[in-house]
Amino acid sequence: MDTRTMAIQAKKASILMQGVSTESKNSALKKIADALLARKEEILEANRQDMERSTAENLAAPLLKRLKFDEQKLNGVVEGIHSLIGLEDPVGKTLLARELDDGLRLYRVSCPIGVIGIIFESRPDALVQISTLCLKSGNAVLLKGGREASLTNRILTQVISEASLEAGMPENWINLLESRDEVNEMLALDEYVDLIIPRGSNEFVRYIMDHSRIPVLGHADGICHVYIDKDADVSRAVDIVVDSKTQYVAVCNALETLLVHKDAAEKVLPALKEALETKSVEIRGCERTRGIISCKEATEEDWKTEYLDYVLSIRIVDSLDEAIEHINTYGSGHTDAIVSQSQESINRFLEYVDSGNVFANCSTRFSDGFRYGFGAEVGISTNKIHARGPVGLDGLVTYKYKVIGDGHLVADYASGKRRFTHRDL
Amino acid sequence: MDTRTMAIQAKKASILMQGVSTESKNSALKKIADALLARKEEILEANRQDMERSTAENLAAPLLKRLKFDEQKLNGVVEGIHSLIGLEDPVGKTLLARELDDGLRLYRVSCPIGVIGIIFESRPDALVQISTLCLKSGNAVLLKGGREASLTNRILTQVISEASLEAGMPENWINLLESRDEVNEMLALDEYVDLIIPRGSNEFVRYIMDHSRIPVLGHADGICHVYIDKDADVSRAVDIVVDSKTQYVAVCNALETLLVHKDAAEKVLPALKEALETKSVEIRGCERTRGIISCKEATEEDWKTEYLDYVLSIRIVDSLDEAIEHINTYGSGHTDAIVSQSQESINRFLEYVDSGNVFANCSTRFSDGFRYGFGAEVGISTNKIHARGPVGLDGLVTYKYKVIGDGHLVADYASGKRRFTHRDL
Repeated sequence: MDTRTMAIQAKKASILMQGVSTESKNSALKKIADALLARKEEILEANRQDMERSTAENLAAPLLKRLKFDEQKLNGVVEGIHSLIGLEDPVGKTLLARELDDGLRLYRVSCPIGVIGIIFESRPDALVQISTLCLKSGNAVLLKGGREASLTNRILTQVISEASLEAGMPENWINLLESRDEVNEMLALDEYVDLIIPRGSNEFVRYIMDHSRIPVLGHADGICHVYIDKDADVSRAVDIVVDSKTQYVAVCNALETLLVHKDAAEKVLPALKEALETKSVEIRGCERTRGIISCKEATEEDWKTEYLDYVLSIRIVDSLDEAIEHINTYGSGHTDAIVSQSQESINRFLEYVDSGNVFANCSTRFSDGFRYGFGAEVGISTNKIHARGPVGLDGLVTYKYKVIGDGHLVADYASGKRRFTHRDL
Repeated sequence: MDTRTMAIQAKKASILMQGVSTESKNSALKKIADALLARKEEILEANRQDMERSTAENLAAPLLKRLKFDEQKLNGVVEGIHSLIGLEDPVGKTLLARELDDGLRLYRVSCPIGVIGIIFESRPDALVQISTLCLKSGNAVLLKGGREASLTNRILTQVISEASLEAGMPENWINLLESRDEVNEMLALDEYVDLIIPRGSNEFVRYIMDHSRIPVLGHADGICHVYIDKDADVSRAVDIVVDSKTQYVAVCNALETLLVHKDAAEKVLPALKEALETKSVEIRGCERTRGIISCKEATEEDWKTEYLDYVLSIRIVDSLDEAIEHINTYGSGHTDAIVSQSQESINRFLEYVDSGNVFANCSTRFSDGFRYGFGAEVGISTNKIHARGPVGLDGLVTYKYKVIGDGHLVADYASGKRRFTHRDL
């Protein structure tokens, strides 16, 4: 089936999805969870073949690890589906109810967005998480996973599709794209696809943004900062920097640039250097940093770089405001943290740092849908419109205005014969 | 000043705007209202010159009417500013408060979007409405009005800028672009401009969407429908169609295509034809329509056309579902209404018509920020993300996540030493 036909059918399915009850959606999720367990052997066998082929093709070890979908991961996604069943349905909430006039009432009601195109990395568990989030929020979905995982993705899509059909979901609500060409075709289908969520390298996300009229939700860069304020406790500051930088270096919420107040630098930097060396982190410092500890030189380019590796750039600043300005200039609006004892500094930082996630006295690694208690996330957004930060069910819905009248005409208000009451119900 | 420098300065102002208190914003609005009255003569004189020049250039009468900014219009916008002062501040609302663990708390807090670029038509009153909405929501703004209104727009911007500076607003929060070239330059400044709201012809809006990576909020087309269900009361149906079509033909929420259930057509169409003829509305009908009343022929092209004129296309459908499918295929997701006595039909229509505004038994002309009681609107959105329908203060804010900890590290949760509590506060 060509991508256009697939998108048209997904659009049709999305209209039907608007009216599906919470009960039916939860029952479909239950059937999907059961089917994943019942068809475990088929799924694991498909993944074994993907692993074999990718190993033969010399796929890098970290990627092989992400590609692997074993019994433990399968049990994990099934558990995830059961928690999703327990979450409140984001659709059909009355967000506003207002009498406009006698017998004329306005309601703002949450509803699904429609058709969502999601391009994700090699992890097959992401396919299950994303598609079940879309189902619960009433959206049809076009999915494109990594080529390495093609057999696993195919069987997972088939299992999810068949199980949800049995539970009364419309046909074609879930669709799998299999090639990069199909992704390019999808980018042109703004008539049918309402939102694209790309997960991947920043070059890839920028490519998507530049080649589609469809709104894109996600993030290109994750250039995250920690700022150590002048009065910060040294050992706390070191712990937060080490956790932010090294707990998992290859992720978007890992620390990339450390800013240190000039009055804290002499105390913090030597201790920090020692701690980072035990984790094999390369330090690149500004001139003043290199006056205190020996390290490589940081250039202007470093402030703009997301290393995703065991590298940290360090800059000494004269004030909190200089730190805020650095972050707003070089950051990517993802996650930035302050370590400080001063409530005034903390408030100022949280207020004026223009990022989706602004933290005080904790690791940048906390910015994540699971850790926020959202159940799961389709991604982290650095957009400033619609959804910002970790995007869970709430970010997958929009709203419509319903107005119910009794023969009301605008001419009567224009002539002054009737007047609006505008009374919230 | 070039557009890039203007945008950079607006971005700086927008950061400062994030922290301005409700009190200061309301005091600035009060000073703006006072200054508009105090400098009335300068403003009216500038508008007289714009009117004279535009009259000499043979600007069409309806455009001249929109360009005119007299004492009555000035009093109108001043009154609008006073109601805006009375509206709740959309910034700084805590939308979610959750304990993640002992001493680790998550807050979702509404905040301004940043820098908004707004391109609007010739009405100078729009400049005052839009810029004061941006001020109240804490956003910096780049404005581009119609060339005809250049002198009026210049003095209004100056008055607003000076009065708000006196009240402590940051410099450069309001900026006026004066040429089409500057608009084109702005479209490339996605580093500094967070959102564009274009108001104007659909060709113009599409041009903006195709030439910028910046998110665009608004609508291109307003192809609105009324569907007359089989049991609809004839005189009510006729009244609603006449109001929707003729109360103001040149606006986006005016009716363009009427759908009539086959069982209602024989009764409704002759009465409707009579009523529309008194308003000089040209009817273009499908084949079955032309079997009942004599009128011009409607082609496939008519279903896709926003006339913005005294023209109405009519199609007879076999069922409610056929009407819904027609609307979801040819409509623009703006405003669509059903006239029906059946609660079941009404519910089905409101549920499955995929538009921002779905109405039952009232005129399509009600979809408007003032009529909804939003105070004012920056425009009507047919987007499916961020803001849909009339966009008032609520659509001009986003949110950020604030996490406040006490030295919390992710490694402790990964190792199982600590567990999340996820308790809503």
